[in-house]
Amino acid sequence: MNDTVTIAVDALGGDAGASVVLPGVAAALAQDSHLQVILCGPADIVEPFAREHERCQAQVTTEEIAMGEHPATAVRKKRDSSLVVGCRLVKEDRAQGFFSAGSTGAVLAAGTMVVGRIKGVARPALCTVLPSPAKPVILCDCGANADCKPEYLLQFAQMASIYAKTVLGRENPRVALLNIGSEEAKGSRLAQEAHALLKDKFPGFAGNAEGNDVLAGSFDVFVTDGFTGNVCLKTIEGTARTLMGALSGVFRANPLTMLAAALVKGGLVDLKRSLSSDETGAAPLLGVRGAIMVGHGSSNEQAVKNGVLTSARVARLGVSKIIAQTILPETASGTIIEGK
Amino acid sequence: MNDTVTIAVDALGGDAGASVVLPGVAAALAQDSHLQVILCGPADIVEPFAREHERCQAQVTTEEIAMGEHPATAVRKKRDSSLVVGCRLVKEDRAQGFFSAGSTGAVLAAGTMVVGRIKGVARPALCTVLPSPAKPVILCDCGANADCKPEYLLQFAQMASIYAKTVLGRENPRVALLNIGSEEAKGSRLAQEAHALLKDKFPGFAGNAEGNDVLAGSFDVFVTDGFTGNVCLKTIEGTARTLMGALSGVFRANPLTMLAAALVKGGLVDLKRSLSSDETGAAPLLGVRGAIMVGHGSSNEQAVKNGVLTSARVARLGVSKIIAQTILPETASGTIIEGK
Repeated sequence: MNDTVTIAVDALGGDAGASVVLPGVAAALAQDSHLQVILCGPADIVEPFAREHERCQAQVTTEEIAMGEHPATAVRKKRDSSLVVGCRLVKEDRAQGFFSAGSTGAVLAAGTMVVGRIKGVARPALCTVLPSPAKPVILCDCGANADCKPEYLLQFAQMASIYAKTVLGRENPRVALLNIGSEEAKGSRLAQEAHALLKDKFPGFAGNAEGNDVLAGSFDVFVTDGFTGNVCLKTIEGTARTLMGALSGVFRANPLTMLAAALVKGGLVDLKRSLSSDETGAAPLLGVRGAIMVGHGSSNEQAVKNGVLTSARVARLGVSKIIAQTILPETASGTIIEGK
Repeated sequence: MNDTVTIAVDALGGDAGASVVLPGVAAALAQDSHLQVILCGPADIVEPFAREHERCQAQVTTEEIAMGEHPATAVRKKRDSSLVVGCRLVKEDRAQGFFSAGSTGAVLAAGTMVVGRIKGVARPALCTVLPSPAKPVILCDCGANADCKPEYLLQFAQMASIYAKTVLGRENPRVALLNIGSEEAKGSRLAQEAHALLKDKFPGFAGNAEGNDVLAGSFDVFVTDGFTGNVCLKTIEGTARTLMGALSGVFRANPLTMLAAALVKGGLVDLKRSLSSDETGAAPLLGVRGAIMVGHGSSNEQAVKNGVLTSARVARLGVSKIIAQTILPETASGTIIEGK
């Protein structure tokens, strides 16, 4: 696991951009002595940093994809953006992975359009590792595919299960379908058909799960379409933020409650950390070649550091190669309708 | 608001059944002196209760719909179940509303099949009032319709907006479409088409909102298909439960943290209450005649009491009549494709 690996990093990604990405990359380089980084961005940002840091190479780019731009259009037009160039480095095998905390949509588009899908994969999926007090869980797809077919969900299950095994070390991951009832016949037409397909084609399918199961610790992977997955992910983030905010109001009420806050501070810090996506730092786009990893737009230095380290880990573990070897037979059996 | 109103109540509803429903009904009768209740259930449960309580009439039924039964089949077959008979009382105008904490699916089925849709309404929708520290918000649909058309979502917006105005007293409710991005072109095909339709036909449409907006307090109503709405609702419940559980672990760690717990107890109790659906106690099935109200399966006595009182309030306010008057013109304009 200490093989040399090269990760391309988007210096401009995230709400805070280079001011957070650069120290994050520096921390990742310091922690992993076999990590090489190709930092993509404007000359005045990436060149001085590369000169000052061992194992970091500058890749000068002249364009930037902003958060609000239409992903596919931006990726098609801005061929010299840090995001597109970073993906091209993976495509050309000069890097084994790419990390960006930039526009999720643009990373998904560039991952699919520039790096390219693994043969047999109908739709790449965004596979988020959700922090939880019990244990981290996987939600897949989290937003790459708003409209899905049952066949896509079967592949999401296969890919996310591989990720759970190799990266999270879950020997026999319990894979559930996110649905609105535990019975087989429950849910939308998509959910019902996906249930039947998973039952038939995915060994060890654990059945339906509901929204209240996601953080409860009984399953390792939740398979869903990208619309539902994204709403679920953001609902968890929003609920946690609202509750922690309300709790902080309770603690600030008066001198006695402030004393209480001081007494539980250690435990609260641990709890907050157990809920923070900063510890993983990056979600993979599964189903494309190489390790294409998306960081949260609000990433801080710690999240970027962990995102780059996770990208290196995913690249070293060869997740995309394992997916390529596993997905192919399903295509041959005719289950998967190849996407456009 | 103190007019006499009659609410039929399912004595068998909920995980705890009559042991929780009866004291809940007694408390509601004690609080609202113009409330009449028709209690539906087995003779040995409803008759003694009716004898002991003023303004309560027993309606003996001989069948019961269990939580796991297929809703439509159960409603069709068990015509003398407490749930079906309660709905029939509304249909026959002997009661203005019906409350059950039983199988949500069965209440939805009975509401639609026994009581009947308001003319012009394509699909009745489950409209949940979500507790939140900021202010309660409405999520509609929460599970009545797993597969939706854009036209349904337009009606959900109209009906939920009426509920927000009349029952929650929001003068100009901010109605948003639950989606996976703020831009118009974001989301699934359904979300994109619903956005366009809402923009065109629903005056004051506030645009897209995301999962993290639901509890944040900027909107009053979130319109969505029943699949996404149900996942969102249960995700909020599960996240809150997980966090409150983890927090309770922090407080139980040692004598000092237990002291802290004692110091913030009042604030925590208030916070817990602000998150509890017991305060509303019931969600309406909008789009059917009368006030058909669903309680949470895990309802306690307090939740049943509030559910019955909310049912009385919704019936007195004439929500279904206002919906009937408002929805009709839309049908005439050809926007709504009448459902089967």
